[in-house]
This record gives sequence, structure tokens and C-alpha cells, in this order.
Amino acid sequence: MQNESLTAEVVSIGDEMTSGARLDTNAQWLSRRLGELGIEVTFHSTVGDTLQHNIDVFRTAALRADVVVCTGGLGPTRDDLTRQALAAVLDQPLELRQSALDHIHRLFARRNREMPQRNEVQAMFPVGSLEIVNPQGTAPGVDATFQRPDGSTSRLFALPGVPAEMKRMFDETVAPRILESGANTRRHIEHHVMKFFGVGESDMEQRLGEMIARDHVPRVGITVSSATISLRISAIGESPQECHRQIESTRAEIMERVGELHFGDGEEFEQYHAVERMLAERGESLVSVEFGRSAVLANWFASLGESSTYRGGFCFAKLGELATVLDVDADSALETLRRRCDSQWLVAVDEYPSLECSDDQPLPAAEVTLIVIDPTGTVFSTTSRLGGHPSIIYERIGKAALAWLRRVLTEPRADRHDNPTAAAR
Amino acid sequence: MQNESLTAEVVSIGDEMTSGARLDTNAQWLSRRLGELGIEVTFHSTVGDTLQHNIDVFRTAALRADVVVCTGGLGPTRDDLTRQALAAVLDQPLELRQSALDHIHRLFARRNREMPQRNEVQAMFPVGSLEIVNPQGTAPGVDATFQRPDGSTSRLFALPGVPAEMKRMFDETVAPRILESGANTRRHIEHHVMKFFGVGESDMEQRLGEMIARDHVPRVGITVSSATISLRISAIGESPQECHRQIESTRAEIMERVGELHFGDGEEFEQYHAVERMLAERGESLVSVEFGRSAVLANWFASLGESSTYRGGFCFAKLGELATVLDVDADSALETLRRRCDSQWLVAVDEYPSLECSDDQPLPAAEVTLIVIDPTGTVFSTTSRLGGHPSIIYERIGKAALAWLRRVLTEPRADRHDNPTAAAR
Repeated sequence: MQNESLTAEVVSIGDEMTSGARLDTNAQWLSRRLGELGIEVTFHSTVGDTLQHNIDVFRTAALRADVVVCTGGLGPTRDDLTRQALAAVLDQPLELRQSALDHIHRLFARRNREMPQRNEVQAMFPVGSLEIVNPQGTAPGVDATFQRPDGSTSRLFALPGVPAEMKRMFDETVAPRILESGANTRRHIEHHVMKFFGVGESDMEQRLGEMIARDHVPRVGITVSSATISLRISAIGESPQECHRQIESTRAEIMERVGELHFGDGEEFEQYHAVERMLAERGESLVSVEFGRSAVLANWFASLGESSTYRGGFCFAKLGELATVLDVDADSALETLRRRCDSQWLVAVDEYPSLECSDDQPLPAAEVTLIVIDPTGTVFSTTSRLGGHPSIIYERIGKAALAWLRRVLTEPRADRHDNPTAAAR
Repeated sequence: MQNESLTAEVVSIGDEMTSGARLDTNAQWLSRRLGELGIEVTFHSTVGDTLQHNIDVFRTAALRADVVVCTGGLGPTRDDLTRQALAAVLDQPLELRQSALDHIHRLFARRNREMPQRNEVQAMFPVGSLEIVNPQGTAPGVDATFQRPDGSTSRLFALPGVPAEMKRMFDETVAPRILESGANTRRHIEHHVMKFFGVGESDMEQRLGEMIARDHVPRVGITVSSATISLRISAIGESPQECHRQIESTRAEIMERVGELHFGDGEEFEQYHAVERMLAERGESLVSVEFGRSAVLANWFASLGESSTYRGGFCFAKLGELATVLDVDADSALETLRRRCDSQWLVAVDEYPSLECSDDQPLPAAEVTLIVIDPTGTVFSTTSRLGGHPSIIYERIGKAALAWLRRVLTEPRADRHDNPTAAAR
């Protein structure tokens, strides 16, 4: 198999998916991962817990795709038909695999529970298929090769539907086996995620140019979540070292093109992590104040836990209310709060726009004032015009406030746009 | 067509779906709606922007399902191939439909823009197919009947991929046409959603028994989102009045079984809406305080906007920090805050557990103290043991606090579990 020309199909199994009771997120995750391996996903199929339907879907998939990854139907109940469907499609009987049974027994023993008889069925495998170890659960996966009538083959991987188990099994076993099966010697894959804020997706694509083309080596994928852009570099090479070299040089090239928008690396790394890191290095702390109709900043910083440099979050309709609570003038409310909280920094949003009457349509840009107070009590404020879909507008505004805070934290004093009256109003 | 025995397939079209760049939520939404019409969805298929693949998928779907609803591929660009694929499957040429072209022209005129030439293609329809009006966008839908070799038929509905447009077109045109096509006279459908908190999904299912069976009339669907349970009653009848009667009697039966867990009705109705309504009726107000690592209460109440009875939200690591900010003793901090905010009520969570080291696994139950202070300054506190997956645990705790607040707001004083020391610590 030459990865570059392989196609794949992702199959999701379960009545809860076809009925719409549950949203399928596995297919998206697997499609991205397969794409990173250089494999084009051409179809997704979802099928309920009906044996003949499963058999039909597996056969169709194996005939039209080189790699088939299916999730679900590997549990111990009578609803779980993936093993039987695979056996039928492969035309092989099911046999008990002792290594898999031992694993299931160990898992129950570790939980101090007796293994129910019905779980034994999870150790049944079509003759000739390989086991995919599930370190977290009782359902091992199945790895089988389907012989097409024309003599070519398709590789079928069956994984459990539980996302955490499925993801780990794909990364630890399925991806390496797909790479190993290639005729080439590029058998390692490494990922690296870079995060950006402050630009739209199409502008970002334009500035990256051919770097995000499908045939770029290494592959660079772009995704957007609530105005944060992630670039995921997926390097395939003969050794981890070669992968790391590819990632290093690609990362440097990306930084050259859009470095000023970059705030950190890592799948889960957000701007509030960047702010917390900057403050921790200085040994300084932060308090947030949000006027209007959201508390996204408080929610983000609160999620950092006890280790954080975050002093607290405040959320009011208007500045006057904060002043009343603190028992001070409106003019000095924010600065009073910063000092009473014993915090070096304060960030404030004034204010989140109303979503009333938005009717699920993008909101027109509204003027929002972003305020930062530094350890000397100096106020830095900027006014942004921010719009967007109701589902992301508050996060986008909160992120714009963090971008403003990062700028005040990093840029030399002289460059700052300083407007002390905006905060005092 | 007799709806009771119909099956359906949902088809999603676009490279952004097969590649995993975008999560498909349309298929889930359509599956639920079709289920409510009494139609069993047996397959979902997702296909990229490749003409032959689209033709193959449409044909397979039309051969195995009585109703096919596909989304995407109706835009004006060369990537958009749904019209051509439908024409090929139906074996009919495309023709320009003047009514559709007029609609597109009107839409551009309303936006004060010239219609680009390429949008004309959106008015092309396979000969013999019907138009599905799109009130919000330029892409009309297509409604066509596929003749199977055995003489039976399948109904194909093609809708745009934009969720807001797709949903409105399904509800306004596709659902009525599916009901009309039935041999029976039950051509109206009405929905009603009831909301519950305070019980797990399986307990709820057990208490509802046969009411949530697939063949129950009217159908009652159960879904869970972050520990809130929704029951959706879908009544199909000869008239809106008959539907309403079905809903009334089913709603009464549900209230008899699980009424004490019910907090309101409506798809978007949450506990914080219920609390706001109760407070508005009394002309009273609320302030929220959250210790630990979240600000979900502040976020929810802030989202209510200016009309709300919400005075403000506070989020700190520990009680001592609040006391410092207010410049009072820890013992009187919460009550001082309630009074300074000029609020009748206060609700507090002490405290959200850490998610560190949770490793994407459900957290063991942690003791969380939920505190309410009433207009007289009396403190009502209760300790709950709450666990769950990291992605929902904070919302579950916030919701438990709201359930406690609702109980204090509604139950006679004598029944309350009163423990003033817990808040003062």
C-alpha cells in the first residue's frame, strides 16, 4: 500500500446514531487523523444495530475503500453485532482468542469485579484477524484483511464507540499498522499544533498559501474554533527525528508568515493559558471584570484551578453596580477592585452586546471597550468593533480582551495606545 | 405511503465533512425529526464533492430507503454537484425553473446586490421535480421521486447544508409533504418539549416505562444534555386540535409520573430561566458566588440580558478572597455581598472540584456545598456528592445549585434543611 493514493471509509454503528439520539463525533475525529496519514476519506456511513445492514455496509466499504475504520458494536450485549458482521463479510467463523479473554479477565480483576459470562463474547475474533489492544476497556478491536474479488485487498479496523478508548487505540495501534503496511519506509508520524488569534480563516489561508495545500510535506491542517485558529502539522517520516526536523522547519516558516498572531502551541492551549504563563513568570496576578451578558473570562480563568495567578472574576450589568458593591465612586471602581483583590493586573470587557432578536443570524459588529489596568494603576483601553454568530460572539470578545491584555503585557510602554478616560467614563 | 413502515436515509454532502474539517450536525437533527414523523432512519451516508460518488450514494439510498433527505451541494459553485447528481440518478435533464430564478433575483435585490451570473445554476431542476422554497437563502431545495426497477418509489429531498436554512425548509415544506404523501389522513404534526433535572437517564426511562416506547402514540423522545433531561412529545393527527389534545393528555401523564423533577417547558428553557421567572414574579433579585474553578452560574444568568433580575456574579478561589475584597470578616462575607448588591437572594457553590489528573475519565463524586441566602438573611445549605465526566461536571454542579435554590424558593419554610454554619465556616 502506498499511503499517498489510499482512500478510506469511516463507519459508525449504533441505533443511537441513526435515530439521532447521539451526535457522532468519532467520524470527524477519525477523518482528520486519516487525512494526517495522507489517506483521503471518501465516505462516512452510519448504520443501526441490524446485522444484515451491518454486513451490507461493511462489504460496500471494503469494496470501495482501501482502509475501513468502524466504531461501535463491540460491547457484550446482543445489540453488539460488529464481530458477527465482520465474520460474515470475511467469510470466516468466530473463534475465542485466549489473549483477549485474559485481558478482559485482568480488567475486571483490577476493578475487583467478577467477569459476567456475557463479556466472553468480546474475546471472539474472526479466524485470521488480529487483535487491537484496548488499554482502557473490555472491548478489544479487530484488524482484518478483506479479499476483493479482483485479488486486491481492503484493511478493516473495528474499534469501540467510546471516544476515549477509540482515540487511544487508533493512535497507539491502528495508525502505526497503517503506516507499516505501506510499501515505503516512512513509518513514523508526529503531530504539532500551533494556535493563533486575531485573523479570519480566509485571510489566514491566503497568508499561508501553498503551505496548507493537500500535497504539502509535512501536511498542515487548519481548523477554527470560536475565532481561534489551529494549525496542525502532521509529519510522516522514517524516524521520529526526521518527523521532528520536518516540524521544526515548517513551524519556523509558519512563524515567519503569521508569527505576530501566534500565542502558543498545543491542542488544548488557549489564550488564557498564555496569559497565565506570562503572569506566572512575572509573579503577578489578574482579576477580570465583565459587563453585559457573559462571564467567559471568569469561566476560562477559573478553570485553571488553584495553581493559577487568577484572583477572581466579576460580572455585572453595568459599572455602577460594581461601584455600589465596593462602596466607591464609579470613576475609581475598577482600580479599587484591582487593589482590594491584591492583584497587579485587571482586564475588563465593557460590554458584551445583547443577543436578543439575533434570530440565529450573525450579529452586526458592535463597539466593545477592552480595558487593562497595569500594576501602576495606568489604564489602557481600546475600542473594537466585533460581530459574529451568536454562538461564538461572546468568546470572540473575551478572546479579543485577552489579545489586548497580551499586547499590553508584551509591548514596550511607548507603543501603547493609552486612554485613561475610557475606563473611568 | 404508510408512515408507520417507512424507512429513511440521511445523506450529507461535502469534502469539508468527509475530511473532518467540519462536524456534521445536520444528520442528527434530521434523524430526530424523521423519527418524530414515525419514520425509522436506517442509514446515514456522507460523501465528498465528487460527482460519481454522489450518484452512487443517491442511487444506493433511493434503492434501500423510502425517503432520502440530503443536505449540501446546492450552492452556486462548481463544487456543488447535487443538482447534477440528482439529474443523473433520476435520468432527467436539468431545466431552468423561472419561479426559482425569480426568487433568487428578489433575494439579491433585497440585499441591494446584483445577482452574479453563476447563481443562475441554482434555479436548475431535474425535469419533473418540485421546488422547495428557501425563505432565507438563494439555494432552493429539490423534491423528486425516484422510480425503482421493481415499480416502487423513493422520495428524494435535497436541502442546502446551512443549518438554519435546512431546518426551516424541512419543517415548513418537507415534513408536511411527507405527511401528505401518506395514505392516512394524519397530516399535522406538533411538538412539545418538557425539561427535567435531578435524575439519571436510565432512572427516568424506567419511571416512564412504555411511554417512551417507539410505538407509543404520541411518540415521546428522551435526550440528555449535561444532566438536563428533555422529553419531546411529537403528536401526529388529523388536525392541530387533535395534536394538542394528544400533547395535553401525554403531558399530564408525564407530570403524574415524574412531575417533581420538572422545571419548565420549551426546547431552550433551562433552570436559570425558571429561576429568573420565579424571581421576576416576586419582584426579587439574585447574586451568585462561585468558589473553585468555574463560573457557570454567572455565565448562565449573564446571558439573560438586561431584563433579568440578576444583580451580578462573583468567582473566587476561596471565601477568604471575597472577604478581603469586601473588606469584611469571612463569616459575614456572603451576607454582606447580598446586601451590598441590593439583592434579595444569593446562591453560592463551595466549591467546584479540580479537574487536574482527571485524564478524560469520569470524576469520582466530590462533596460540594450548595448555599442559598433568602431575603431575611437566613442561610440554607446542603451538601451534595456530585461526580461525572469532566466535560459536564461543572454544569451538573451549577444545575444542582439551581435546583436547591428552586426548592428553597418554593417549599414551605418548615421543610427546609437549615444549616447556617456551612456558609460561614
